[in-house]
Amino acid sequence: MSGLIRSKTTSELLRQLAQESEGLSQQDRRDFLRRGITAVGLAAASGTAGQALGREEIDPANLPPNEPRWSRQLGHGVVETPYGMPSEFERHVIRRTVPWLTAESISSISMTPLAELSGIITPSGLVFERYHAGVPIINPEEHRLILHGLVERPLIFTMDDLMRFPSVSEIKFLECPANGGMEWKGAQMEALQFTHGMLSCCEWTGVPLRVLLEEAGVKPEGKWILAEGADGAHMSRSIPIEKALDDTLVVYAQNGERLRPEQGYPLRLINPGWEGNTSIKWLRRLEVGDQPWYHREETSKYTDLMADGKARKFSFVQEANSVITNPCPEKPIRHRGYIEIEGLAWSGRGRIRQVDVSFDGGVNWVPARLKGLVLSKALTRFSLDARWDGQPWLLQARAIDETGYVQPTLKQLRAARGTSSIYHKNSIHTWKVAASGEVTNVQIT
Amino acid sequence: MSGLIRSKTTSELLRQLAQESEGLSQQDRRDFLRRGITAVGLAAASGTAGQALGREEIDPANLPPNEPRWSRQLGHGVVETPYGMPSEFERHVIRRTVPWLTAESISSISMTPLAELSGIITPSGLVFERYHAGVPIINPEEHRLILHGLVERPLIFTMDDLMRFPSVSEIKFLECPANGGMEWKGAQMEALQFTHGMLSCCEWTGVPLRVLLEEAGVKPEGKWILAEGADGAHMSRSIPIEKALDDTLVVYAQNGERLRPEQGYPLRLINPGWEGNTSIKWLRRLEVGDQPWYHREETSKYTDLMADGKARKFSFVQEANSVITNPCPEKPIRHRGYIEIEGLAWSGRGRIRQVDVSFDGGVNWVPARLKGLVLSKALTRFSLDARWDGQPWLLQARAIDETGYVQPTLKQLRAARGTSSIYHKNSIHTWKVAASGEVTNVQIT
Repeated sequence: MSGLIRSKTTSELLRQLAQESEGLSQQDRRDFLRRGITAVGLAAASGTAGQALGREEIDPANLPPNEPRWSRQLGHGVVETPYGMPSEFERHVIRRTVPWLTAESISSISMTPLAELSGIITPSGLVFERYHAGVPIINPEEHRLILHGLVERPLIFTMDDLMRFPSVSEIKFLECPANGGMEWKGAQMEALQFTHGMLSCCEWTGVPLRVLLEEAGVKPEGKWILAEGADGAHMSRSIPIEKALDDTLVVYAQNGERLRPEQGYPLRLINPGWEGNTSIKWLRRLEVGDQPWYHREETSKYTDLMADGKARKFSFVQEANSVITNPCPEKPIRHRGYIEIEGLAWSGRGRIRQVDVSFDGGVNWVPARLKGLVLSKALTRFSLDARWDGQPWLLQARAIDETGYVQPTLKQLRAARGTSSIYHKNSIHTWKVAASGEVTNVQIT
Repeated sequence: MSGLIRSKTTSELLRQLAQESEGLSQQDRRDFLRRGITAVGLAAASGTAGQALGREEIDPANLPPNEPRWSRQLGHGVVETPYGMPSEFERHVIRRTVPWLTAESISSISMTPLAELSGIITPSGLVFERYHAGVPIINPEEHRLILHGLVERPLIFTMDDLMRFPSVSEIKFLECPANGGMEWKGAQMEALQFTHGMLSCCEWTGVPLRVLLEEAGVKPEGKWILAEGADGAHMSRSIPIEKALDDTLVVYAQNGERLRPEQGYPLRLINPGWEGNTSIKWLRRLEVGDQPWYHREETSKYTDLMADGKARKFSFVQEANSVITNPCPEKPIRHRGYIEIEGLAWSGRGRIRQVDVSFDGGVNWVPARLKGLVLSKALTRFSLDARWDGQPWLLQARAIDETGYVQPTLKQLRAARGTSSIYHKNSIHTWKVAASGEVTNVQIT
């Protein structure tokens, strides 16, 4: 799934691409022509907004064409799909794992096929998975949430109790802080699904943790909260009371329906904008304390080893990040002419303010358009109309969030944090577009 | 699934409820106390915001409680769920049909379980179905969209062609105009799923039809567009050019992934805010003409028979509507004290401006709170904090949209449109809450 490629400077890569383009141009032109005449492929450019897309002028006398088989027969009825599933032709759109990444499938990761997705909602069946002792099958009737520690009134909640509280629904991204972490040192994953696929965005519904804490009455010395899962790993993280009183949610629904088992059914935490690991799934216990617990997942894991041998701890926020989803390795450029450069941007600190796109590895930048909903701590789509005529590109996106934070280059990130980290790699990502239209993952150092 | 109940006036119903409450009060009090002491049920009211919800003060020395079985074992791993599904404990959350409604399952309806849903996104597996010749299984590689008629350049598009156009993603509701139509004359469905379940809301992604029409070049005399499906029924509707040039979308994705087969895979129209029937699924043909076609689905069906024997035609817009989803027949009130009255409102003309709630069948109204995203032509959630102590309610919601349109009473609707219609019944809906907390569907005339 990945291979080590020697990193190159921008000018090295541009020079190499120019050579490749030179060498391939005759063959490429033949390929292009051969592709261009198949079926209803790319036609000559029209005057319409410079966007001559694939199409064919047709003779109205020949319409409608021969009826396809599905128009000449009855389909299946409503009783056959009480709960609907994707088309059989979309079987390839699934979560995928990287087998060598972890020793066991029960403590592994599966990643979202970002290249195949549209809009900002990730369908629940494709939300990435990360867990440490497999997915527990929890009976919601038996499940309890305990809230105790430095509170006036320790409480136990049934699911029914929790659902009686007034609920809120919010669209927020969720990202594993290890997203892209395989690339800190230089390893390069071959596909968008593996470079950025530990990222999803859903509409989450639940109760603000603040409301439950008010019910329990936090004592003045209560400064941290331990959240613990009911899975076999008892996954736990310490969360500062400021976050808990700000926007942390105790969530039971995802994209309109109850949480999926892999996402914490029947109950989980969502810490908007924070590393996904803190959004404890299968949530069963919240303890208020006066200091962090320093459990395994906030000491040996989920800390950032710096160049000087010390580790950053509690680096919760997922800083502004972005990636181009079209084109990408799974979506090479197949047509000359118009192309919508499209991608996703997100920031754990709020809204995306701006995204810029570079075609030359970061030498020049063009502002992209933010499209659709631009929500705080949610995936945001950006778009840029472009024209590709076989020229090589070093394609990059750079996000700027509402705090003014600018997504760093890999060079800047390494200068600040060394090369021993795993988490929080949010540097500008580069896709190399070859003269053939193929797209590969390259690192510019 | 339904029964005929004699309609009553508000005062009749309130009187009856008062009598029921009187008669049941002793038994009801015993029931309440019995329920109150089970497990971690409803405790005494606390001072916190008047919202004493179910909970129990616990002895911290006893924490954590005995480990449930799922915390003492490993769960399943990532390879087992490449495409995730709901928990086995949510098996009851499915689309349901009304068997007597149509002769055949392939020309039938299945309805969305609105009572079980949260937020505004309907998960794709639960989006209501309505079709006329079953669900065709279409190979997207072979599928074509033809655009012809009064245009300068007739065009054929492959799916690949369409996906090269710049896309837009928008959250819009979709509603069958027959939603609630069984109740025009007085029949009353027993559950929210059947009174309002032909209603869903998704994030749709596709190309504005306007863009395709610009590519083809509409001739000056082009005033209507026929949209035709590739299903065995060749479902077709005439759409005015003004709508097509305004916000009609040619859609290939739904909630982030490709359309589900039941919702038109691989291609459909979405006419935001208009009766669902016009949003032709399995879209294969768009013809520009100078007048409507008067096909079957806009003459014998999807017209509104008025009291004078004439029929309203092309009544496209789904006017402002609303319904309370908690409580409802599927979600009776189980606890005294705090309850979040919650519901959905929507308008085919734009944003919801206001929703009012009545507890006495429309005599008095209290403004509700709009919560979460308030988007044009999308489902909007409303909420009202209330207290229930066993008193009978005639619960209603009334939506007002940004045009100032006020959702009518059934009496007003019948005065304007008689009792022979099937479509566009958007009148104020009434849930009767009995002293037992049970909720039934009643009509106030």
